[in-house]
Amino acid sequence: MTTSTAAPNLATSANKPLESDPIVDKLHSLARTESRAYDLVRSLVDEAGSRLAGSPGDKAAVAWGVRTMKELGMQNVRAEKVMVPHWERGAESGRIVSPVSHTLALNALGGSVSTTGKGIEAEVVMVDSMQALEKLDEASVKGKIVFFSARMQRSRTGDEYGRVAPMRAYGASAAAKKGAIATVIRSVGTDHDRFPHTGGMRYEKGVPEIPAAALAVPDAELLERLVLAGKPVRIALSLSSKTFPDAESANVVGEVIGREKPDEVVLLGAHLDSWDTGVGAVDDGVGCAAIIEAARLVMSLPVRPRRTVRVVLFANEENGLRGAKTYATDHTVEMEKHHLAMEVDYGSGRVHTIRFLGAENSAATFSRIAGFVAPLGIAYEQAPASGGADTIPLRPFGVPLVDLSQDATKYFDVHHTANDTLAQVAKEDLDQVVAAVATVAWAAADAPDFFARVPEEQRGRK
Amino acid sequence: MTTSTAAPNLATSANKPLESDPIVDKLHSLARTESRAYDLVRSLVDEAGSRLAGSPGDKAAVAWGVRTMKELGMQNVRAEKVMVPHWERGAESGRIVSPVSHTLALNALGGSVSTTGKGIEAEVVMVDSMQALEKLDEASVKGKIVFFSARMQRSRTGDEYGRVAPMRAYGASAAAKKGAIATVIRSVGTDHDRFPHTGGMRYEKGVPEIPAAALAVPDAELLERLVLAGKPVRIALSLSSKTFPDAESANVVGEVIGREKPDEVVLLGAHLDSWDTGVGAVDDGVGCAAIIEAARLVMSLPVRPRRTVRVVLFANEENGLRGAKTYATDHTVEMEKHHLAMEVDYGSGRVHTIRFLGAENSAATFSRIAGFVAPLGIAYEQAPASGGADTIPLRPFGVPLVDLSQDATKYFDVHHTANDTLAQVAKEDLDQVVAAVATVAWAAADAPDFFARVPEEQRGRK
Repeated sequence: MTTSTAAPNLATSANKPLESDPIVDKLHSLARTESRAYDLVRSLVDEAGSRLAGSPGDKAAVAWGVRTMKELGMQNVRAEKVMVPHWERGAESGRIVSPVSHTLALNALGGSVSTTGKGIEAEVVMVDSMQALEKLDEASVKGKIVFFSARMQRSRTGDEYGRVAPMRAYGASAAAKKGAIATVIRSVGTDHDRFPHTGGMRYEKGVPEIPAAALAVPDAELLERLVLAGKPVRIALSLSSKTFPDAESANVVGEVIGREKPDEVVLLGAHLDSWDTGVGAVDDGVGCAAIIEAARLVMSLPVRPRRTVRVVLFANEENGLRGAKTYATDHTVEMEKHHLAMEVDYGSGRVHTIRFLGAENSAATFSRIAGFVAPLGIAYEQAPASGGADTIPLRPFGVPLVDLSQDATKYFDVHHTANDTLAQVAKEDLDQVVAAVATVAWAAADAPDFFARVPEEQRGRK
Repeated sequence: MTTSTAAPNLATSANKPLESDPIVDKLHSLARTESRAYDLVRSLVDEAGSRLAGSPGDKAAVAWGVRTMKELGMQNVRAEKVMVPHWERGAESGRIVSPVSHTLALNALGGSVSTTGKGIEAEVVMVDSMQALEKLDEASVKGKIVFFSARMQRSRTGDEYGRVAPMRAYGASAAAKKGAIATVIRSVGTDHDRFPHTGGMRYEKGVPEIPAAALAVPDAELLERLVLAGKPVRIALSLSSKTFPDAESANVVGEVIGREKPDEVVLLGAHLDSWDTGVGAVDDGVGCAAIIEAARLVMSLPVRPRRTVRVVLFANEENGLRGAKTYATDHTVEMEKHHLAMEVDYGSGRVHTIRFLGAENSAATFSRIAGFVAPLGIAYEQAPASGGADTIPLRPFGVPLVDLSQDATKYFDVHHTANDTLAQVAKEDLDQVVAAVATVAWAAADAPDFFARVPEEQRGRK
């Protein structure tokens, strides 16, 4: 495929559907008028609630996935066992001790160790980046709590997440190396509401494991004002989070068997787990709903596509990617039959751009598929698809990928918060996502030729 | 004054300033360019934090008020002692037990008793009004938890608060009379975020006191869906709130002494206390800031107004009105010298309408003052002013009132929640409020004639 780095002419490609097709038109119409995606999200979040890997909600979600796909008439529905990490939050609290007294709205980061005894209290040292932390000498960090104050800008692409989230993921070990006893971060989010944004973090081997928490943005801004005012600022943290032995969960799989080449697979992925604070309607209930509903719409057509459309509800995306890894391991021999893979994990915002990652000789088919989604307001960007977290383990196998990039303007307002509930889902936008997924799934699964593998040099992650 | 019930021609009155005045123009310009109101809110909420009556934050706020008004050069600055109720929330939690398991985001209502022992668990009976509860027979309520599901509509006036808030205030006793063991309400709020809205409630004498809590709107909607699905729904509540003996607080008073009639008073009121969950930037930090800043702008003019402008930061508006009651008691002999009173307690939304309550022969002056605020986009509505909570005790004395009605479209999104922080304050809108308050304060204080008392028949509250 073309990997030109020149800016693509998005307006032109978005506005000129390459061709029309009665089945595509039918899928667009069905998604607009008969989509059950919103009801599927509601059903999942009402029945399973929050569903962090290893929790009772996680188990309930697996049962929901199996039952739902069976009820919809999908084939080969099964739960494929995955062993997942099992971390529990427990009670948690924080406060500013001096120079003034304030309660802090915070969440332990996923995987954080607890504070010991009655908690810890120490002076804060504020940095706005990993680089700023690196420049501090150990004497100014030792025994203190490092506060990462970096803020995330709002955008349609959500690209800033890539810049800021590493402080959440790796900041604790970086701070511990300098002698810090804990870290707090300004939540990686674009809202100004009093919801902390939790998220995954990892400890580096051989480095002391120190507690790590996220502050709600208004609380982080208060802390920043106090630090900038110049007096020493002391805060207290009490976290009682705990890691248990790995637990059993599952990837839930269901299929619409292809009419000609049933062993060739178009994979639609989303993740079934969520963080524990909210019910994960947006992250990633909507993704699960969109791919199930897309498969249902394909199944409702008078004719099946040539190849199989496989829905995979991955386990444990949030804090381990064990579902994706296990899928790749369990299906290694079948990887060469994976025609195309896509992931829906960016909320319910409308799809604005489509990109592919594949071999040069698939370009004509990719372009044809892009034309099919153009009437949905989706631009064809001729730059390589990035894939998502759950498609990472497919990359070494050269499985072609497609990105349906969604509008993330509001996504990071509720991402990883207690506020991720059904009330945040926009039905009409979600149904446009369903239309896009169904169209790409059908068109790829029905394409005449099997997609050649991604060239070796493009299999790494951007 | 005119109390016509015909719809006033707001557009006409808003668009035609009756006259211009160099001092008024100066006040408008100062508020636009030099207002310190936002900094005052920040200073209050950063220094005192949440400040429920009787709490350490309440004490800190009194100290802040005295120091701030002294620093600004106001006169007769003092704290006037007020004994206030002292209620503390303590730990609290709730969950749906069956038919599915969910955590409930809830807050005890202010004044609620605790649940005893390990909390209570019971089946829910749902009603959407006090009338619907009345219609239920005791057998269907006895031993259950009554869930008030009424929703509040968003509007510029916020009028729906008057319809829905009584369920919060009086629902517990009404339910207890039928044998309920607790009540939960859908939060009285217009958001769909996961913040419960607390608020005041009262127990009726001689009726068993049962625990009462507010559910965040998404949680209430989930509970509603489950109840409507038809299976019995059981929830569990654990509240550890407690009422302590009355504590000492204060109304904080400061003045700009009038040049001719210093004993005649234009009262600008707001309340210094807040609920305990947030820091009360919007409710009512902005009100305190607006009236202090308005007084400062008046003070900055080359000439003082004829009469005294008195700023009163009332104690304990939220759960007792003890500040307002004590003020009226302590200043009874001075009430006949209260020329006009206004209250700012509706957030930082822009003022859209002005109304007065007074004697017929003040109409010309009221109309002139309304003309002065017309350039701020404020319509003159010739219907009687309603006053606010802290001006209720002034009404029997016939003190004339003025309403500066603010846009409440977003006010009830954060009202009484943990999300009431500085991040919710819009500086530019707040500065328009300052301009309006300063203009009315100056023009009223400088009016040639003392305003006659409100006629007896109009002294009751609407």
